[in-house]
Amino acid sequence: MEGTRVSYHDSVRKMVERLRSDGITNLWDRYVSQGLGDNPDKRCPFCMAGVRCDLCSNGPCRADAAKDKRGVCGITADGMAMRMMALRNVMGASTYHYHTEQTVRTLKATALGKTPFSISEPSKLRTFATRLGINTNGSDAEVALRLCDFVQTDFQRPSHEPSLIVSQLAPRERQKVWKDLGIFPGGIYAEMLRVTSSCLTNVDGYFASLALKAMRMSIAMAYQSQIVNEYCQDILFGIPRPHRMRVDLGVLDPDYVNVVPNGHEPFIGFALVQAARKPEWQEKAKKAGARGIRVIASIETGQEMIQRWAMDDVFYGFTGNWIMQEPLLASGCIDLFACDMNCSLPVDPIYAEKYHFKLVPVSDLVAFEGVSDRIDYIPEEVEQQAERLLEMAIENFPERRRKVSPVTGLRMGEAVVGFSTESILDALGGSLDPLLGAIKEGSIRGVAGFVSCTTLRDTGQDVHSVRMARELIARDILVLSMGCGNAALQVAGLCLPEARELAGPGLKKVCEALGIPPVLSYGTCTDTGRCADLLFTVSEALGGVPIPDLPVVAVAPEYMEQKATIDAIFALAFGLYTYVNPVPPVTGAPNLVKLLTEDLREVTGGLLNVNPDPVQAAEALLGHIESNRKKLGI
Amino acid sequence: MEGTRVSYHDSVRKMVERLRSDGITNLWDRYVSQGLGDNPDKRCPFCMAGVRCDLCSNGPCRADAAKDKRGVCGITADGMAMRMMALRNVMGASTYHYHTEQTVRTLKATALGKTPFSISEPSKLRTFATRLGINTNGSDAEVALRLCDFVQTDFQRPSHEPSLIVSQLAPRERQKVWKDLGIFPGGIYAEMLRVTSSCLTNVDGYFASLALKAMRMSIAMAYQSQIVNEYCQDILFGIPRPHRMRVDLGVLDPDYVNVVPNGHEPFIGFALVQAARKPEWQEKAKKAGARGIRVIASIETGQEMIQRWAMDDVFYGFTGNWIMQEPLLASGCIDLFACDMNCSLPVDPIYAEKYHFKLVPVSDLVAFEGVSDRIDYIPEEVEQQAERLLEMAIENFPERRRKVSPVTGLRMGEAVVGFSTESILDALGGSLDPLLGAIKEGSIRGVAGFVSCTTLRDTGQDVHSVRMARELIARDILVLSMGCGNAALQVAGLCLPEARELAGPGLKKVCEALGIPPVLSYGTCTDTGRCADLLFTVSEALGGVPIPDLPVVAVAPEYMEQKATIDAIFALAFGLYTYVNPVPPVTGAPNLVKLLTEDLREVTGGLLNVNPDPVQAAEALLGHIESNRKKLGI
Repeated sequence: MEGTRVSYHDSVRKMVERLRSDGITNLWDRYVSQGLGDNPDKRCPFCMAGVRCDLCSNGPCRADAAKDKRGVCGITADGMAMRMMALRNVMGASTYHYHTEQTVRTLKATALGKTPFSISEPSKLRTFATRLGINTNGSDAEVALRLCDFVQTDFQRPSHEPSLIVSQLAPRERQKVWKDLGIFPGGIYAEMLRVTSSCLTNVDGYFASLALKAMRMSIAMAYQSQIVNEYCQDILFGIPRPHRMRVDLGVLDPDYVNVVPNGHEPFIGFALVQAARKPEWQEKAKKAGARGIRVIASIETGQEMIQRWAMDDVFYGFTGNWIMQEPLLASGCIDLFACDMNCSLPVDPIYAEKYHFKLVPVSDLVAFEGVSDRIDYIPEEVEQQAERLLEMAIENFPERRRKVSPVTGLRMGEAVVGFSTESILDALGGSLDPLLGAIKEGSIRGVAGFVSCTTLRDTGQDVHSVRMARELIARDILVLSMGCGNAALQVAGLCLPEARELAGPGLKKVCEALGIPPVLSYGTCTDTGRCADLLFTVSEALGGVPIPDLPVVAVAPEYMEQKATIDAIFALAFGLYTYVNPVPPVTGAPNLVKLLTEDLREVTGGLLNVNPDPVQAAEALLGHIESNRKKLGI
Repeated sequence: MEGTRVSYHDSVRKMVERLRSDGITNLWDRYVSQGLGDNPDKRCPFCMAGVRCDLCSNGPCRADAAKDKRGVCGITADGMAMRMMALRNVMGASTYHYHTEQTVRTLKATALGKTPFSISEPSKLRTFATRLGINTNGSDAEVALRLCDFVQTDFQRPSHEPSLIVSQLAPRERQKVWKDLGIFPGGIYAEMLRVTSSCLTNVDGYFASLALKAMRMSIAMAYQSQIVNEYCQDILFGIPRPHRMRVDLGVLDPDYVNVVPNGHEPFIGFALVQAARKPEWQEKAKKAGARGIRVIASIETGQEMIQRWAMDDVFYGFTGNWIMQEPLLASGCIDLFACDMNCSLPVDPIYAEKYHFKLVPVSDLVAFEGVSDRIDYIPEEVEQQAERLLEMAIENFPERRRKVSPVTGLRMGEAVVGFSTESILDALGGSLDPLLGAIKEGSIRGVAGFVSCTTLRDTGQDVHSVRMARELIARDILVLSMGCGNAALQVAGLCLPEARELAGPGLKKVCEALGIPPVLSYGTCTDTGRCADLLFTVSEALGGVPIPDLPVVAVAPEYMEQKATIDAIFALAFGLYTYVNPVPPVTGAPNLVKLLTEDLREVTGGLLNVNPDPVQAAEALLGHIESNRKKLGI
């Protein structure tokens, strides 16, 4: 497994050589070892096709749609595949919402003056509160507390009461479609309960019913979890605004104490930067023999941070996405890896021992075998928690420096990060018109919401993601990138204005005129909701075009985990033409496949495309955009 | 697959012959068709051992603990098996809690005078409210509304705030253990969110951490979902009190309109009985050519009903547990099958067509491919909903009677049902002393909480359950039976006083003296919480004996689905020696197996036993009881 089967990125390919020469377990070798026969991509055909089930003691069962062979309970292949997908969707929704609850808790504590954070965007607080129909009289703190109570009440609404957040925020046209389909949701907890309970053995074995239930939950998730989360994080930590950021593994300097907050929740990460920027902590690091102490951004926690805060010599740079993790940890440059809610590998303790860094879970969700030190995030204590982590990192430095030979000379690049609805409007002089004009006159054919992870299936890390992004911009499709897929494009250099050279002539011209890259870095996977809200703004600006008729597509070229699955389900509920790769485990379910890839157009207006070939996929995406342009008469 | 591989019950064996001669898909044939090679019990060894995972797109993966072969993410075999088990646990907790929310909603609507139900046990309402620390001033309706608000607030409590319901109801000794282990729960929703999110790829891959999280959730589930549910159902529909009930498929008479509410939630079932007992509905049925209209109890919905309401010519009898379903539906006696939340097979539409009955989901959780008629339960409309269902059933009768040749002559037996803490106390003259005296002096060696489903794995329906119950009572162990396993013993005749002849000499003597059967029918799987509460009463009556030291065991000889898995996890958290069969899919996870079957004794005091041999299992259970008796000096 060499070259492009390893990674798109030189830095990672170089580090994988180190992992192998060090004989340490790593993603690439583990991937190969899972292959049946000589083919690393070949796995159990029933599992691959989604037609097996081990939920109850009559199983495990395998289904075969061609022979109408069913599970012992009588569930069909379609039912099996969709039920397992619905469970993955619940896992994704659940984890997104866990993050949201922590954000709301942080905002509440901040409004009460109990955290080192502040309400740094009072105008966004008031705009958002107004959109939700909340009384905005009184101080920022009072409005914030009212906002927190409002959203928490909505989260807990029963399933039979329509969500006020969704009613207030979603496009009217979508609301009507969702009501007609019976998928307008109540509170997120009740919707998760409803899907999870429906998946029990002998409750709901009907794939179409389960698909609708999953979509209903995804709508609650997008508005209640994702949008509330990102907007409250904006209120606390700042609206993303474009700026440059160092990226790739070259941001690691072994002579500094390097602290890496990792995961998806940025609270401890921001507190670490606030503390590390104080001269006293730089002094402490220097006393330990380092040139200083740095906070290095990583994965989605890092993405949340870099889109909002500027780089300096302390908040130094961003490494990349989750597959960067083992290379990063093996670099010999890391002193402390603080793991919040998501995306820390179970093998991290093996790395901590070998490469001598402190591995500390900072969320009560995260645990590692053999790791007992932990600092579970508490908003009211985050300042002391961050200082304790800095101390641990500084303590670690001398011995790490003595014991581990660091890898240096890895590439460092740059990316422009920090696009958001507000900052796009700012960049365009306060109105979407320049962008809409370019779309209408055709320089930009359309927009792709690019929300992805990264996976080793089919290609190496980020290979297919970069390829897809290039195919899209070459076709004059503007890319808004989110999630670990965003990191792929940031590290690959596509989030720089210079990347316009890779764009088609129309998009290139617009990029030149507006001074923007052809790929706009739009945050994390949690920003999917923000992106949906932007599309609502676009649809309004175009005079109320229904979402399915917009010249936009959703693209997930390397989906990996369960959050991605709920994002895709939401994209379908939202009415988007949605490209997903690798092919999800539903291929043994012909009626489900037909629903997702054909019939759904008549249901929500969305449609799934799963072509693994990048050129064919890009052509199909462009085809959808062009057909919508024709419909709109542009 | 013949004889005891089909079922313990003659009636079912006879009906399976009909299913086969009718050439209709059925559980037994589907079970055999899942076997690899010639062995119906042989399945994919990775699935059977719990060491496979298809959650993310790097998989599907298989793990091998012996070679430390891990999933692509690095998760171990132990982590894989426990993670999937934790997800099953969430599914079980979720479905229990869905039922509880419907019960609380029903109680609230009833207190507001909006349902045909009433607060039929005001004294239990006040006792329960008092135990929860709720103000009991005012009318029954006021107290009920206060109770509903109190429990719903607790359900929604964040994970970092201790549950008041658990604090008020659980034994002090258990509370201390749970606090020391960090598994004292917050609200059930937050605990489900916590476990589900922890199961995401790359969040918590540590089996021991996941096991503790699952136990924490199970404690929330037992007290907030199960106990609240059953006690509120008692308040609404009556505390279970012992009485005789007709059982087995012989309760079906083709000349009546037979309406079968099926599942776990009894609301529509009770409303059906209330309506059908009115002369007008009997008249309507007679006009359609029937001898009358009957409501037939089935599975757990039926179990909830029969434990509370007496039989008559309308509420005629109880069929049995979930594996009875296809035989029941093929009997040619059914006019309407109303399916609430749980335990209706995906193949029911095929039966509805062939045997000409109406199949109607009555919960928004339930759906069938090809069935569009549905009546989703709404408390405020339940009277009209029940009447609509009766109408549909009566409409169905003439054609069903004409088209389908019914099976008659099936066995009808009887069972004494309706034991509960209150009714056991009543039966004993207001004090537990006669029972405790018998335990202390040794006539009864101990008590088994028998909570089970039924499964075709290893033996036919109920074969292992009946065998285990007989082995236990023969060893002078009093059995309290719940769930589908309760139906196994009811239909098998073990819930009759005459069954004392199968008991050991000590238990037989006590049964004779007290006029009770050796197996006390104690309700549904949801009554697990009620049983835990009874054990608390027993432990208090014995002067505060810690739960793990009581001469009691938990027994699940034929667990089937995900509710059963969370019951078992709770039994372990509660500190019980717990027998489970079939062997759960954890055998490929050696450290997890060691935790559950050895180390847990030092953690919660609970322990898992999974011996498929009934004699050896019964001996092990007795061994635990005897060793506890020795510890207690009795």
